[in-house]
Amino acid sequence: MTVSELGERRLLARIRERLGNVAPRGAPAPGQAAATPQAAVVIGIGDDAAVVAPTRNAHTVLTTDAQVEGVHFDRRWSGPADIGFRALAVNLSDLAAMGATPRWALLSLGLPEALPVAEVEALVDGVTELARVHGVGVVGGNLTRSPGPLLVDVTAVGEVRPRRLLTRSGGRPGDELFVSGSLGAAAAGLEMLRSGRASAEGARERPGGSSESHCVSRLIRPEPRVRLGVAVAQARAARAAMDLSDGLADALDQVAEASGCGVEIDADALPVDPAARTWWEAAGRDAIAAALSGGDDYELLLAVPRGWRGRLRHARRHVAEPPLTRIGVLTKDREARVLLRNGRRETLPRGYEHWR
Amino acid sequence: MTVSELGERRLLARIRERLGNVAPRGAPAPGQAAATPQAAVVIGIGDDAAVVAPTRNAHTVLTTDAQVEGVHFDRRWSGPADIGFRALAVNLSDLAAMGATPRWALLSLGLPEALPVAEVEALVDGVTELARVHGVGVVGGNLTRSPGPLLVDVTAVGEVRPRRLLTRSGGRPGDELFVSGSLGAAAAGLEMLRSGRASAEGARERPGGSSESHCVSRLIRPEPRVRLGVAVAQARAARAAMDLSDGLADALDQVAEASGCGVEIDADALPVDPAARTWWEAAGRDAIAAALSGGDDYELLLAVPRGWRGRLRHARRHVAEPPLTRIGVLTKDREARVLLRNGRRETLPRGYEHWR
Repeated sequence: MTVSELGERRLLARIRERLGNVAPRGAPAPGQAAATPQAAVVIGIGDDAAVVAPTRNAHTVLTTDAQVEGVHFDRRWSGPADIGFRALAVNLSDLAAMGATPRWALLSLGLPEALPVAEVEALVDGVTELARVHGVGVVGGNLTRSPGPLLVDVTAVGEVRPRRLLTRSGGRPGDELFVSGSLGAAAAGLEMLRSGRASAEGARERPGGSSESHCVSRLIRPEPRVRLGVAVAQARAARAAMDLSDGLADALDQVAEASGCGVEIDADALPVDPAARTWWEAAGRDAIAAALSGGDDYELLLAVPRGWRGRLRHARRHVAEPPLTRIGVLTKDREARVLLRNGRRETLPRGYEHWR
Repeated sequence: MTVSELGERRLLARIRERLGNVAPRGAPAPGQAAATPQAAVVIGIGDDAAVVAPTRNAHTVLTTDAQVEGVHFDRRWSGPADIGFRALAVNLSDLAAMGATPRWALLSLGLPEALPVAEVEALVDGVTELARVHGVGVVGGNLTRSPGPLLVDVTAVGEVRPRRLLTRSGGRPGDELFVSGSLGAAAAGLEMLRSGRASAEGARERPGGSSESHCVSRLIRPEPRVRLGVAVAQARAARAAMDLSDGLADALDQVAEASGCGVEIDADALPVDPAARTWWEAAGRDAIAAALSGGDDYELLLAVPRGWRGRLRHARRHVAEPPLTRIGVLTKDREARVLLRNGRRETLPRGYEHWR
């Protein structure tokens, strides 16, 4: 049955039922004396708007990010559950980069009339799956027809104590730059799918079954670094942060510019994903450049003063994964955009402007 | 110049500049001891997410509503500024129906690559125009390409004191039903545009210049009843409320169902817009039925206990416009859906399921 055959009201009732279980749950993040999460949702889906009770003495953090078919995902590769998962993930990544604990989300769907209802349900289940992991309540949203592409727009709302807030602009010369996890797997995964070298089915069945599956899985099911961002903020272990949605080169540009600094990066230190490196080197390409410019790595870039290493260790006691790698420093010279490689000073590639 | 020629970053910089002036301003709504609105925006556009400081002891009210080209608006009739204005208006209407004071908004745009930059700027100006009127800070959002239709998704965030919250479900048998403003003008305006009887240009130049212009103007530039909703909530003058985005018949259905009541409506009392009535009667149609089922009237439906009339008068001292009309009552019999007309008891038409 398609969504237009079922009709808006009955579709809404089904979605509401699927989301009904997502009462925000779980322990409040360490050190955060939140109101009990259940009590924080005053009115969920079904009225003119959702109503929540913010935590006393916390700031509210707001972000929205749309996923458009043909621009951000391809239904040949991403199943409906992947699309829903990813739509929430990219928003939670933005909250993590502010040090905010995710609390609530709104889900706005634009549905082609011929879309099977089962696919909408699977999409909602993908959202729910990730929402449960992080105790996020999906409290409202909107349903509309789309005359063409499938549209998934998520708004995520988080909370952070004022003094724990992480911004892009807090960095100072001398701060060490750290990046979480590994770089380039998602970009390589997209190339593997496009070339036919990897299949999304394989990645879905066994995400770590092969190096290709690993890369594809990073692309279609990105894991936002929520716990890391919150732990770093709570330990006040970083002075600036940003997520790597548009690639590391772009994040370095943005943090350096907002902080009024330059950057000096050590090419050998970059944690290029091994599978991505193998893929690019087999094609005779510069894996460092590819990993720097590749997007869709939902990792975090942190600027940490040297004297704050103890705080960073403290943050890591709560959240050991993913690894953090020191990749360079912020410099006094605002114009500096240096990539140290093989003892030479190259110019760091500019972040790719992808317009999407 | 088109948006793809300008590129994402420069477009974002231009939009940010246009929105920069929208520091939330103006007097806090009566009785609301809000933090100074300027201080409430901690971080606006330009970081991973926006950060705001919620008002102490207020609930946060969240709503999102997408406007999709070809579904919610037609670019033959709605100029870019109209589209932006309307995208915010429909969200503010949802907040008004909860009794919430609008505070912040996020603007998520999906832009066809060939769209002229000037049209994006005009769209943003349309948002800004309405945002200024209500002291709303447009604090963030998202830009993306769209492979087809123009997409405008707004998330609006309001605040309300817990005991002032208006819901759909608060009505009780015997409560009187009031509706604000007039009914049917927007629906008639759409018909006038489609038939070629009215032009959008005429309505834009002189919104009240003719009965056609008046109707078209109600369609393309709906005025959300923000001040009325807030004043009613603050005076605790209604027990239930809902906005009329999907028409009065639909709102009556929803409020009655959520409140566990039936409804009895007096056809003679319905404030059908005179221009719409003339339009429908000239076509030999039932103006009452058309006004009940016509959507896009962003008016408010209120359920008010008889003993609360003094409170309603109190609310009206602050907000005299638009008029409120008593149109019927909530009944004990949950099955009752009665339209009293010419001394006969007809069945109230069901809300139209329009799937959009």
